[in-house]
Amino acid sequence: MHKIVRKIQRPDPEAVKILGDLGVATVHEAQGRTGLMKPYMRPIYPSAKMAGPAVTVLCQSGDNLMIHAAVEVCHPGDVLVVTTGSDSTDGMFGELLATSLVAHGVVGLIIDAGVRDVGELTAMDFPVWSKAIHAHGTVKSTAGSVNVPVVCAGASVNPGDVIVADVDGVCVVPRETVPEVVKASEARVAKEEKNRQSLREGKLGLDMYGLRAKLKELGVEYE
Amino acid sequence: MHKIVRKIQRPDPEAVKILGDLGVATVHEAQGRTGLMKPYMRPIYPSAKMAGPAVTVLCQSGDNLMIHAAVEVCHPGDVLVVTTGSDSTDGMFGELLATSLVAHGVVGLIIDAGVRDVGELTAMDFPVWSKAIHAHGTVKSTAGSVNVPVVCAGASVNPGDVIVADVDGVCVVPRETVPEVVKASEARVAKEEKNRQSLREGKLGLDMYGLRAKLKELGVEYE
Amino acid sequence: MHKIVRKIQRPDPEAVKILGDLGVATVHEAQGRTGLMKPYMRPIYPSAKMAGPAVTVLCQSGDNLMIHAAVEVCHPGDVLVVTTGSDSTDGMFGELLATSLVAHGVVGLIIDAGVRDVGELTAMDFPVWSKAIHAHGTVKSTAGSVNVPVVCAGASVNPGDVIVADVDGVCVVPRETVPEVVKASEARVAKEEKNRQSLREGKLGLDMYGLRAKLKELGVEYE
Amino acid sequence: MHKIVRKIQRPDPEAVKILGDLGVATVHEAQGRTGLMKPYMRPIYPSAKMAGPAVTVLCQSGDNLMIHAAVEVCHPGDVLVVTTGSDSTDGMFGELLATSLVAHGVVGLIIDAGVRDVGELTAMDFPVWSKAIHAHGTVKSTAGSVNVPVVCAGASVNPGDVIVADVDGVCVVPRETVPEVVKASEARVAKEEKNRQSLREGKLGLDMYGLRAKLKELGVEYE
Amino acid sequence: MHKIVRKIQRPDPEAVKILGDLGVATVHEAQGRTGLMKPYMRPIYPSAKMAGPAVTVLCQSGDNLMIHAAVEVCHPGDVLVVTTGSDSTDGMFGELLATSLVAHGVVGLIIDAGVRDVGELTAMDFPVWSKAIHAHGTVKSTAGSVNVPVVCAGASVNPGDVIVADVDGVCVVPRETVPEVVKASEARVAKEEKNRQSLREGKLGLDMYGLRAKLKELGVEYE
Amino acid sequence: MHKIVRKIQRPDPEAVKILGDLGVATVHEAQGRTGLMKPYMRPIYPSAKMAGPAVTVLCQSGDNLMIHAAVEVCHPGDVLVVTTGSDSTDGMFGELLATSLVAHGVVGLIIDAGVRDVGELTAMDFPVWSKAIHAHGTVKSTAGSVNVPVVCAGASVNPGDVIVADVDGVCVVPRETVPEVVKASEARVAKEEKNRQSLREGKLGLDMYGLRAKLKELGVEYE
Repeated sequence: MHKIVRKIQRPDPEAVKILGDLGVATVHEAQGRTGLMKPYMRPIYPSAKMAGPAVTVLCQSGDNLMIHAAVEVCHPGDVLVVTTGSDSTDGMFGELLATSLVAHGVVGLIIDAGVRDVGELTAMDFPVWSKAIHAHGTVKSTAGSVNVPVVCAGASVNPGDVIVADVDGVCVVPRETVPEVVKASEARVAKEEKNRQSLREGKLGLDMYGLRAKLKELGVEYE
Repeated sequence: MHKIVRKIQRPDPEAVKILGDLGVATVHEAQGRTGLMKPYMRPIYPSAKMAGPAVTVLCQSGDNLMIHAAVEVCHPGDVLVVTTGSDSTDGMFGELLATSLVAHGVVGLIIDAGVRDVGELTAMDFPVWSKAIHAHGTVKSTAGSVNVPVVCAGASVNPGDVIVADVDGVCVVPRETVPEVVKASEARVAKEEKNRQSLREGKLGLDMYGLRAKLKELGVEYE
Repeated sequence: MHKIVRKIQRPDPEAVKILGDLGVATVHEAQGRTGLMKPYMRPIYPSAKMAGPAVTVLCQSGDNLMIHAAVEVCHPGDVLVVTTGSDSTDGMFGELLATSLVAHGVVGLIIDAGVRDVGELTAMDFPVWSKAIHAHGTVKSTAGSVNVPVVCAGASVNPGDVIVADVDGVCVVPRETVPEVVKASEARVAKEEKNRQSLREGKLGLDMYGLRAKLKELGVEYE
Repeated sequence: MHKIVRKIQRPDPEAVKILGDLGVATVHEAQGRTGLMKPYMRPIYPSAKMAGPAVTVLCQSGDNLMIHAAVEVCHPGDVLVVTTGSDSTDGMFGELLATSLVAHGVVGLIIDAGVRDVGELTAMDFPVWSKAIHAHGTVKSTAGSVNVPVVCAGASVNPGDVIVADVDGVCVVPRETVPEVVKASEARVAKEEKNRQSLREGKLGLDMYGLRAKLKELGVEYE
Repeated sequence: MHKIVRKIQRPDPEAVKILGDLGVATVHEAQGRTGLMKPYMRPIYPSAKMAGPAVTVLCQSGDNLMIHAAVEVCHPGDVLVVTTGSDSTDGMFGELLATSLVAHGVVGLIIDAGVRDVGELTAMDFPVWSKAIHAHGTVKSTAGSVNVPVVCAGASVNPGDVIVADVDGVCVVPRETVPEVVKASEARVAKEEKNRQSLREGKLGLDMYGLRAKLKELGVEYE
Repeated sequence: MHKIVRKIQRPDPEAVKILGDLGVATVHEAQGRTGLMKPYMRPIYPSAKMAGPAVTVLCQSGDNLMIHAAVEVCHPGDVLVVTTGSDSTDGMFGELLATSLVAHGVVGLIIDAGVRDVGELTAMDFPVWSKAIHAHGTVKSTAGSVNVPVVCAGASVNPGDVIVADVDGVCVVPRETVPEVVKASEARVAKEEKNRQSLREGKLGLDMYGLRAKLKELGVEYE
């Protein structure tokens, strides 16, 4: 029933870089307000920012055996996405595992559970988004899977999907839609830059977006 | 049923400045331990600190139409206070709206929902206290009101009430009580300064506040 | 029923210092994954780090009378551990009490409730781990106890137990086990340093910890 | 600062009865989706259902002194609405207080805190909506107020407002709007009865409410 | 981007019935401890129990337009599975929609949001599993989808998957694995029946499952 | 490190029976408002009520090996108290284990985690107080202890302490204080019976408990 898939398809690295630079809020909007993880996923330090293809890991709660199994199938630039069979805040990941991941070129971790050694991870500038910070240790005794489809913090993640993460949260871009999401994101940024300039000059969103008619239609009255 | 009130009464700006300098803990105590929002309201960066008259906004959850409608009725120095009809963590506010508010002189935002573009807002030094940080976008299609009485994070807010906010949370001072709260806050600060000096020298609160008798009366025994 | 115990036994200060330097994650593992408080206990600033013998305080929720009573029995180097009869987020502790504790040499606070004056406490570099940051004030009218066994954030704490706290959370080391925990912690650190070096060179945890056999035994298949 | 207001204005008892029969969902919709308390307010038994004018009580958390003070100002048919200065789950109310309230004709309790003696209260058929069921006892030592405006579970309540409560939650109808809310509620019920009949026969809401055009306008496609 | 898929593949009705009779705990174990929704999903009355193929609905939070759109594509025996773009407790479903679903033969509802008219739904014996009971009403103005893959309460659901629900929670059986899960569930039940008999006679699980050796191997000592 | 203690001291069965009849609220008050578990511990059916000496079990989260190990050391009349190393809602206990416990005379379960087969347990009238109802299964592979001191849902429990549980929650009475708590509880009940009669006749708590003077002293004014 449990398996480790060694080979996955990865998206174009150039596109991944662009999505990472654009950031979570833009990418999430550009793909139709989908793919966002729950707001309890927070970075361990506020400047954390990254993007990369997902290597997915499904663990038993409180057991990090499969994270160890996943290291070997990671490529430089990958992001590890770890989820558990049921809710847990155990600190399933720490500085030693991060050292191992860094040695294999992994750029960050998304974990729907706890993380520890946060002081050391911050010093290493290894970004992690997690549900909790907790020192509670784990065992290594139960089977799980690597590179199977998972649900992580409310979002569906397939191996090779692009993970975009920053202080606003974590967003998943399905691998096959990457080119169109890049295009839509860039269009959005261009439009926003124009709006930003107008707003800076004091123009109202009410006028820019034609919302006065909407208010009238909805029967909102001015006093 | 829904309306936008253009004109509200505002408190004396000098008094607002004093309350902001005194900070949340002092002001809350000085007005009899009232007016505090729930502890889930947290600043997006720890040095955030501000005070100003409230312009209140009541939105449908997941819909920021009325925030756009509110910009126009804000005066320089105001604080926007946004609440929703039911619980939500959607990121109803971001950098574009902040740019617009800054252009109109608004000094900060209190929102009983989510906020996004937190990296950009921090760089702009635009302070926000929110229930969540979440990139999730919103629509602009449902009516609400501006400058009506609202309940925000458990506290009652009327338009023109003074909002005082810092790392300790968010406190509401009813407009009509501002002068007496300023007076009571300053008296408290003066008294505390005296106590601080004594405590620094090693004197015990037990003696300073006459609590030994209290302990005895309550039957607490020493071993 | 309620009492204040003046004299408690304290552990060897040298051992306390070593445990503090080793940090929460190491100490918690070294004593068999026990003694950890719940993950909702967070430091008010990320660099907070300390260790010391516990002076325990049991308060009524929303009443800090017994914290005042506890100051007097503290020794330099102690850590105050405050818990309440039922759940509360009230800000039972602030800068004035911290000033008093500093004057008596106390090195930090663990409180299963709220804290306030967080800006001032951070400026003083007085570390606090709490359930909440909230300005809500408290009364001083109900009996409690000092230096009795308490449960704080899910962990059992006896007076004189060593509290180790950092960004990963808060761990309690029973006083009588301190010497063996120091020994086990140091052994763990030595072993980890060796592993760290191997992982840095790209060696896999899978091989280092002999986990390949485990995966096979569990029936995990490679694809 | 704290006070007990003996006399309050009450709404027409006939109107109160009608609102109670109509129930929370209908009344909340009829007054424009306002006045609803948070969903954490749950009845202690599922058949609980009542309506009545609010006598409001503001207590210190963990202190039920003011509930005792409120009994005397209650009239037959009233509902007690209790809130606290900060979050608490303490069991501030039990069977003895219920016995007292029943003797004075009070028909139920809304409490944004805990309740206890739930077995006895259920046997007495005294309905309570609370945030928690918890046996934790309280003191009687801190001042509060009776019949002042309060915020209870996120809703603003003024003395004399109508409280409508059933298994769907708790709704507040401002006293001065009672007649129009009764009218709007009855109109809603009449309309719904017609719709119910059509739906029962298999007609689609999509057709009844004209939503097909909406779907088309929004660009939703059929496959 | 949004669409309504009219035709989906459904599993063998006989198999669905068997899974429903076996119940959530058995089915979840039999398919390798997967497919379970989060524990916050609770039935509105304790005797609720059902199984059926999923018709999935993705709504904007606080907007039930797509539930109306879904009714038409339901077949007798189906279960409606509703999820929202972001967290919400709004009462998106009530007695009128249930009347409509019953008219089309739908046997129950799974909704990762709120439900209302719980008294009427219980009287109708229409089972619902939800995150909350809340009267808060919703709009009908934003696009969504019907019969697309969704994540509901932490579980991945594809149209036509079997939903099994009872007082223990909600479990999803992927359509293509239904035959093997039926077989594994029945095998489990047979084995458990034998064990139950032994346990009833006082035999120990420790002996029946051969756990004494395990305890010894783990170094657990008897005192 | 981990052990199973076979022999524990148990309290007088007659006293246990009396405490169970008195119920949680009375016992908790009579022992000075201590010993109560957190309010999230709820019975699986509202009429659940029991008392008995605690056999304590410390498990790894998501692993019920030690529950199996505990059955053998239980005596008729005992209550099993299960806690885990870190937070979990996994369904660690179900109908088969209950069948085993019933065969050994155990009268109920307190578990700071999840429970499943709630329909069957209710039919068997086997009472359980738990943090969650969840079907999620567990493994049997990690060491823990039986009959060691534990913290369960915020309360300290030693083997042989009396557990009293009903719809109001769960209370722990330390074994050595049982006789005095019985006495204090019975005194309380007698006093309450007298007060109940007065309250039923309309007398006010304000007068009975002498609270009018308190209100005056606190400066509460009547209007």
